[in-house]
Amino acid sequence: MNPNQTVEDESESSNATITRRMQRLSFHLTPLPPLGSSPQLDMLTCAKANNKLEVDQGSLSIYMRGKNREIQEKIFEFFNARPDLQTPIEISMKEHRELCMRQLLGLVREAKVKPLKYVVEDPAKYFAIAEAVGSLDMSLGIKLGVQYSLWGGSVINLGTKKHRDKYFDGIDNLDYPGCFAMTELHHGSNVQGLQTTATFDPITDEFVIDTPNDGAIKWWIGNAAVHGKFASVFARLILPTHDSKGVSDMGVHAFIVPLRDLNTHQTLPGVEINDCGHKVGLNGVDNGALRFRSVRIPRDNLLNRFGDVSRDGKYTSSLPTINKRFAATLGELVGGRVGLAYCSVGVLKISVTIAVRYSLLRQQFGPPKQPEVSILDYQSHQHKLMPMLASTYAFHFATQYLVDKYSEMKKTHDEQLVADVHALSAGLKSYVTSYTAKSLSTCREACGGHGYAAVNRFGSLRNDHDIFQTFEGDNTVLLQQVAGDLLKQYKDKFQGGPLSVTWNYLRESMNTYLSQPNPVTARWESSEHLRDPKFQLDAFRYRTSRLLQSVAARLRKHSKNLGSFGAWNRCLNHLLTLAESHIESVILAKFIEAVQNCPDPRSRAALKLVCDLYALDRIWKDIGTYRNVDYVAPNKAKAIHKLAEYLSFQVKNIAGELIDAFDLPPYVTRAPIAMQSEAYAQYTQHVGF
Amino acid sequence: MNPNQTVEDESESSNATITRRMQRLSFHLTPLPPLGSSPQLDMLTCAKANNKLEVDQGSLSIYMRGKNREIQEKIFEFFNARPDLQTPIEISMKEHRELCMRQLLGLVREAKVKPLKYVVEDPAKYFAIAEAVGSLDMSLGIKLGVQYSLWGGSVINLGTKKHRDKYFDGIDNLDYPGCFAMTELHHGSNVQGLQTTATFDPITDEFVIDTPNDGAIKWWIGNAAVHGKFASVFARLILPTHDSKGVSDMGVHAFIVPLRDLNTHQTLPGVEINDCGHKVGLNGVDNGALRFRSVRIPRDNLLNRFGDVSRDGKYTSSLPTINKRFAATLGELVGGRVGLAYCSVGVLKISVTIAVRYSLLRQQFGPPKQPEVSILDYQSHQHKLMPMLASTYAFHFATQYLVDKYSEMKKTHDEQLVADVHALSAGLKSYVTSYTAKSLSTCREACGGHGYAAVNRFGSLRNDHDIFQTFEGDNTVLLQQVAGDLLKQYKDKFQGGPLSVTWNYLRESMNTYLSQPNPVTARWESSEHLRDPKFQLDAFRYRTSRLLQSVAARLRKHSKNLGSFGAWNRCLNHLLTLAESHIESVILAKFIEAVQNCPDPRSRAALKLVCDLYALDRIWKDIGTYRNVDYVAPNKAKAIHKLAEYLSFQVKNIAGELIDAFDLPPYVTRAPIAMQSEAYAQYTQHVGF
Repeated sequence: MNPNQTVEDESESSNATITRRMQRLSFHLTPLPPLGSSPQLDMLTCAKANNKLEVDQGSLSIYMRGKNREIQEKIFEFFNARPDLQTPIEISMKEHRELCMRQLLGLVREAKVKPLKYVVEDPAKYFAIAEAVGSLDMSLGIKLGVQYSLWGGSVINLGTKKHRDKYFDGIDNLDYPGCFAMTELHHGSNVQGLQTTATFDPITDEFVIDTPNDGAIKWWIGNAAVHGKFASVFARLILPTHDSKGVSDMGVHAFIVPLRDLNTHQTLPGVEINDCGHKVGLNGVDNGALRFRSVRIPRDNLLNRFGDVSRDGKYTSSLPTINKRFAATLGELVGGRVGLAYCSVGVLKISVTIAVRYSLLRQQFGPPKQPEVSILDYQSHQHKLMPMLASTYAFHFATQYLVDKYSEMKKTHDEQLVADVHALSAGLKSYVTSYTAKSLSTCREACGGHGYAAVNRFGSLRNDHDIFQTFEGDNTVLLQQVAGDLLKQYKDKFQGGPLSVTWNYLRESMNTYLSQPNPVTARWESSEHLRDPKFQLDAFRYRTSRLLQSVAARLRKHSKNLGSFGAWNRCLNHLLTLAESHIESVILAKFIEAVQNCPDPRSRAALKLVCDLYALDRIWKDIGTYRNVDYVAPNKAKAIHKLAEYLSFQVKNIAGELIDAFDLPPYVTRAPIAMQSEAYAQYTQHVGF
Repeated sequence: MNPNQTVEDESESSNATITRRMQRLSFHLTPLPPLGSSPQLDMLTCAKANNKLEVDQGSLSIYMRGKNREIQEKIFEFFNARPDLQTPIEISMKEHRELCMRQLLGLVREAKVKPLKYVVEDPAKYFAIAEAVGSLDMSLGIKLGVQYSLWGGSVINLGTKKHRDKYFDGIDNLDYPGCFAMTELHHGSNVQGLQTTATFDPITDEFVIDTPNDGAIKWWIGNAAVHGKFASVFARLILPTHDSKGVSDMGVHAFIVPLRDLNTHQTLPGVEINDCGHKVGLNGVDNGALRFRSVRIPRDNLLNRFGDVSRDGKYTSSLPTINKRFAATLGELVGGRVGLAYCSVGVLKISVTIAVRYSLLRQQFGPPKQPEVSILDYQSHQHKLMPMLASTYAFHFATQYLVDKYSEMKKTHDEQLVADVHALSAGLKSYVTSYTAKSLSTCREACGGHGYAAVNRFGSLRNDHDIFQTFEGDNTVLLQQVAGDLLKQYKDKFQGGPLSVTWNYLRESMNTYLSQPNPVTARWESSEHLRDPKFQLDAFRYRTSRLLQSVAARLRKHSKNLGSFGAWNRCLNHLLTLAESHIESVILAKFIEAVQNCPDPRSRAALKLVCDLYALDRIWKDIGTYRNVDYVAPNKAKAIHKLAEYLSFQVKNIAGELIDAFDLPPYVTRAPIAMQSEAYAQYTQHVGF
């Protein structure tokens, strides 16, 4: 800003504002030299880097890098070259929605990335695309998800060949932008309670879609407010019958409903669309509310993979009950959760990278008459960020595993795998997104006032990511599914049935875990013992097993008086703790495997350190539980705490290398506050000096 | 939105958009009939309201209502009648800044509220004004704080009569909008490290203000980017000397520096102002960055209460050392922290009210073939919101106490009280703002997708409140001040010195607390015992005392090898836990007092219930600590957990009455999702149906 400029003439400078925005943006997107040579990064004057591990950053980075980095780089290059497609820091909702559509069109029609193909054939690559575009602007990631995973996915996975033939290309090339109209105003989590109806009219061979009351208005429908031409609408299928009731409710099915004219974009007769308006974040996505007033669609528009209606109004299905059909339908939508868990780790990586880099550079206070020290040299700051960095690594490996299992499932359709992926995706989506949401706030706060500058990304990341905890299944509801699944496994175990892959540890060791803790090992406190993966996994699994056994007993007891719904509710906090404990066990197991499988010894040593911090920090956070049953004696509890603090300090010494190993593109994480070399020069430049 | 409207003609409808915005707003601001008659609120079908307490809402509300409700109501009425001064949901940063200035001008010049008078004479009333305007738009609350508490407060409290005579009226009537220029790019928390200089020029009888390097640029200065005419600039006072050094650094002092011409608003020579740009929140406040290039100000512009320079360049002060002067200067600024703690509770009340009201109305799932139940009937939801509601009550009484003590201190200037208010304000500001920040996220998430609609306020409340954790003292730094003060008290105790008011419990019972826990009482688990305030306070204070004693020993041990700075850092997590534990002890003590002082028996019973939940939930959250030293036996730990869950359920049964007793104006908390009577009708209307 020109220092002589006054309030009055500011209003005339909108062109200047745009130019400045562009400059800011290009500044963000211009790749910078790699970190590592900066003296600031080595300025660990307070806590000296004793016993610092040597990290071979190249090999660690290769181990961490996803298999689909190539297509991500293609995406980054495309947007880097197109300032007109980069989201500025301040943008109105209306402009953001249009920009987001242009970004998506650019991705598909100019960069020639065709996501629908990957949704079907190579989901890992699809998730990598979503992560990459989401890291540029999460609105774009979600707009992509609505179009390809939700609208496209529902047509492809719930429909049959006739639907693929008719819609595949139009969806993939964005001629057919569409919506996924499941949620209603009164029913989000309780999908079986949806009230929209699709009544078959045998005379015209059509379905008639109706919104019976205000509570049944389709709500939060992405792509609906502005861009959508179609929607897959979830509605109760109503068939006329010849009995006294006159109609039969066949349960929730999905239907393709055209919303707007393909040429004029006029809303079609009987369709009423309103705008859900400004949201906490993701304002590049145009969420709308849909009301249907006797909208007629051809019978062929029923997505009929799991249930069909013949010309004469007969219902047929390969699945015997409403509940089975409902489960099969929802089961096809599990990919959304896998994607959210995966992308949430991506957001966590960005956030941790910015916060750690800043904390290495930023100095404040110091010993008398000595230079100020990096704020990451403070134990309190290590406590905020190092277990978070360790968790990021842990989640990275766990979600990679989930993506692999999901891809395998899409190929084999193995029934056991389907059940396993369902519970694992519910658990990881819930656990990881809750963790990332909290961490974004912690990172902002760890960067102090400078974390509050919009340009440093924490605000938009948090606002955009926030709803990850709710959509595609509310986290509290999803954790209950995990708990329910564990209880089913538990019951099966006692009936000799199979245990699914992820928790066959229950079979192996349930009895061990349920015996009284060993009073001798409860006192072992050597670092060697505490860093033994066996001790760590045993502790995690002991907790899960114990929670599982005790909640099963409590449920049995309470259901006598309260019924199953009441008993479940009486034990709900217990059930949620169980689910989280189980997910943590899975995460730790996958992390330990990843450490063991790492080929480079130095990278393996670094990962082992990080994994130990993850495990011991978690055990310490729940030390009350362990103490209550004397699984650890007081001296051991103290030793765990002390070691966790020490490991935080050790991880801090290689924190720069650990964040660099994420290998995120510079223009995603190089917020001005976290710039290297001449600290803050870029920041003062950003502000205009 | 007209359903036939297309993307193309939307761009022409900006007038319509403005009209709709106005409608939305007026809808928010129109008072609604009181809650209570709605059938939804009584629909507690799942968990039946056994033993529900009878609450006399009127008397509870009177007990909770602040003494200064009258001026708050005047403010609400003024803004309710002025739609042109209400902040719309979407607004650009530039428009928001101008609107915020117009709001402040309206408050001062039309509603005739003169805040500076209250800053000096009746701080409790000033805080009530800040809370009220902050609840409408927190940007306005902060803009007010910058003008009156920071800029005005520094002139009045750090200056002398000549400054009051010259500036008081201009500041109060907004002829002199000003800034508080303390923070620099490289120094936020470490104020003693500020680098801006004010060098006395004896020839011209002026000070010359200089920014010696980029790191010394004044950063985040509110009111600077657009509106400020003056700033109180904190700079090192440099005096010429006749010795070999040539100059003498007298430490940080405050100076009045004119920034812009009073008539033309042109930036004055040597002053360079840039815009700090878009922030995570509070975008109605125009934060700027200031660089000074040999800016000359008259000698009289030194705010000379604690140190002065004579015409011939001699320094005089009533205080003997730089450190004492620095402490006195910062001590005068403690009101800002008091205000933030107080206003943060105000934000928490709004957030809790919206979330609880929604959770009473919203139904999802239910027992087979029965109506769906309120989501607040789920144990997990009670767990999220009821301890939070209890904490809100606890913080209400604690911050009321703080405001009273602060007001008393401003009258008496009692030295002991000054020290007490300093530590208490640091502790409560830190503890309360961290808690509120987390709770805002929890509330959003507890309201699911509808919590994500901007109109329902969680987004703006969270984004605006976020920085409360950082400004006026970073929370982590402030907690260390509390810990430092406790250690000083501890040392004094052993030297027989006085203990300040807030923690004279240490004197009373330190020895008791430090003896071994009683193995008999450690097993007591009756509800009567656990709900005894003596047990609860003893438990809180035991923990504080023990943490204090152990950290003192650790500090002694480590300082031998690491020096005092290193030892402090080695024990930092421990010190922060100590500070939090102490603050919790104070909060509980004030809550227990407030219960006991409540004149109406039914209100007292309700408050007792809430207080018990606060105490037992806190003890349970830290159960590991208590178990580690066998302060509670396993059976007692279990009983505490069970009772806390039961109390959450009981508090849920009167949650509607408890939030109504906050007596917040309808247009602050009646987010559409939390509307009463015909549930959601207002929400569908908001969206346009």
